Amino acid sequence: MALKVSDIGEKELINYILSKSEDIVADDTAVTRFSDTNLISTCDMLIASKHFPSRMSYFQMGFKSVTVNVSDLAAMGADPLGFLLSIALPKDLEVEHFKEIIDGVINACNYYNIPLIGGDTNEASEIIISGTALGLCDNPLLKNTANEGDFLCITGDIGLAALGFNLNEDNIYTDKSLKPLARLKEGKIIKDAGATSATDITDGLASELYEMKRDSLGFMIHEDKLEISDEFKEISSKLELDYLELILHVGEDFELVFTVSDVDDLDIDFKVIGEVNNSNKIQITLSNGEIKEIDNRGYNHYVS
Amino acid sequence: MALKVSDIGEKELINYILSKSEDIVADDTAVTRFSDTNLISTCDMLIASKHFPSRMSYFQMGFKSVTVNVSDLAAMGADPLGFLLSIALPKDLEVEHFKEIIDGVINACNYYNIPLIGGDTNEASEIIISGTALGLCDNPLLKNTANEGDFLCITGDIGLAALGFNLNEDNIYTDKSLKPLARLKEGKIIKDAGATSATDITDGLASELYEMKRDSLGFMIHEDKLEISDEFKEISSKLELDYLELILHVGEDFELVFTVSDVDDLDIDFKVIGEVNNSNKIQITLSNGEIKEIDNRGYNHYVS
Repeated sequence: MALKVSDIGEKELINYILSKSEDIVADDTAVTRFSDTNLISTCDMLIASKHFPSRMSYFQMGFKSVTVNVSDLAAMGADPLGFLLSIALPKDLEVEHFKEIIDGVINACNYYNIPLIGGDTNEASEIIISGTALGLCDNPLLKNTANEGDFLCITGDIGLAALGFNLNEDNIYTDKSLKPLARLKEGKIIKDAGATSATDITDGLASELYEMKRDSLGFMIHEDKLEISDEFKEISSKLELDYLELILHVGEDFELVFTVSDVDDLDIDFKVIGEVNNSNKIQITLSNGEIKEIDNRGYNHYVS
Repeated sequence: MALKVSDIGEKELINYILSKSEDIVADDTAVTRFSDTNLISTCDMLIASKHFPSRMSYFQMGFKSVTVNVSDLAAMGADPLGFLLSIALPKDLEVEHFKEIIDGVINACNYYNIPLIGGDTNEASEIIISGTALGLCDNPLLKNTANEGDFLCITGDIGLAALGFNLNEDNIYTDKSLKPLARLKEGKIIKDAGATSATDITDGLASELYEMKRDSLGFMIHEDKLEISDEFKEISSKLELDYLELILHVGEDFELVFTVSDVDDLDIDFKVIGEVNNSNKIQITLSNGEIKEIDNRGYNHYVS
C-alpha cells in the first residue's frame, strides 16, 4: 500500500521541503538580507476545524490569525512591517460573522502596530485564514544558537492555553486558549539584552527545546522554577490530566523561550526555568529531586 | 434570515476589508516604501476543489501555486525576492503525491528565479496551497493610472485557458489551463518601456478592465485585433460556448493587460487590442462593426 502523509508525519514533510531548497533557513521565519538590514517573513495557515476551539468567537479567530504570525516576528526580535491576509470562507457564512473575523484581524493589527497591507478572499468548505507577517530586523535572534552556561528562560507562564482548551468557563486559562497574545515587545527587549537564542512556544516547550538544541548541548529545566500554581495542578487533576504533560507537550501559549548569559537587566515579565548544559539531553528536575528525560513530543499535524 | 457571504459576493467582502484598513492599496500587490525602493508583497490561496481542474497533475498544482503569485509581481513590473509556501494536505494523501506538489513548487521557483525561503504545513480535508510572493520595485506599475489616448494591449493570447477548462485532450488550450505561466520578464519590459498601467488577467479581461477604469476614462476593444483563430471559434461552437464569453469573462490566462502611449520599441510578444478613450464605458467593436458595452462579469468566488 502506498505511504500516506499521516504515516510519516509533519517533520518528515518539512524535511523533504528543506532538502529541496537551499534558500530555506529552518528557523521561526525566513531572513532575507536586504539593503543594510534583513527582511523577516513568515506565513501560518489556520484551519477552523484544527485551530479554532469550539468556544472561540469569530473576532477571536481573526485576532489569533494575526497573533500566530506576529509571534514568529517576536521570536526573531523583529519590528513589524506589514500583514497580508488570505481568507477562505464557506458560502453560507453569515456576513456579520465575516465582519467579526475582519474586525478581529484589524484589532490585532492595531494592537501589534502592524499595518494590514493586502490580501485575498476565497471560497472553501470551512474557514481558513492564512496570514503572512513581514518585519525588519538588523540582527535576528535565531533558534539554535544557545551557549553552554546560558540561563534558559520563558516569558510569562506556560501551559495555561493547554488547560484552557479543556475548560468551558471564562478564566485565565480560557483567556489564553481563546485570545493568545504574541510577545512582540518582549522579543525586541530580549534581543537587545543580548539573548543568544529564542523561539515562540507553539507546539509545546519540549518540542521547541528539541528545535533549539544543537550539537552536544542540553537543557535542564527545574520543575520548581516553572512556578506552577496549586490551582493549575488541582484543575488538571480534576480533569485527569497530567499537569506536566500540559506544560511541556501542548503549547499554543505564544510565550517566548530564550537563552541568555545575563538576566540582571532584563526588564520584562520572565522567569529563569533552567540552564543550558553539555549533557546532550533535554531533562527536567522534578520537585521530588528526580531527573527525567523529556520526550520529543508536541503538536503534530497529520497524527491524531 | 441573516445575510450570507454568497448573497453579497466577493467584491463586497473585499470592500468591507478595504473600508477597515487605510494601509491597503487596491492593486495587484501591496507596496511598502522601504529604503530607496519598494517591497512588493502579495498572497493567493488555491483550494483543490475550486482552483485545480480534475486533469491537473500534482506537479502542476505546485507549479500553479507559484505562478498565480508571481503573476501579481509581473503585473507590477517587480523583481522577485522570495516565495513562502503554506500548504495543507489531507491525511490520506500519498507521500509521492506530496513530493510531486513540492517538486512543482520548486520547479516553478527555479523557472521564475524566485527562491523558496519559508513556509508552513498543515492538515486539511483537501489540498490547500497558500503562497506569498515578495519582490522589489522602484516604480511599481499600478492598475488604474491609464491616460486617454493610450494603446490598450495584452501579452500573448487570451481565452486559451478558458477553452482548455472544457477540453480533455492535450493541446495549446489545456496546456494553458493546466500549466499557466506568469509574464514576469514581460512585466519588467513593459514597465521599463513606460507603460502607464498594467494588471494580470486572472478573472477575465472584462473584469480587469473595470478594475483599471478610473474617472471618466473608457476602453474600446476591437474584436478583429484580438486575433481569435478559426480553430478557437470552431471548438467553442462545437462545445456550444460563446467564444467572446470565454475571452472576455473567464480569465486564468495570467497574461498581462496594459496601457502605453508608444508601442514602437516594445520587444515582447504582445498585441494592441484597443485604446483608452474618454467614453466612461468599456466597449467592444465587433467584427461586424457593431459596438457593444461589455458587462462587468468575471470569476466571482461565492457565486456558482
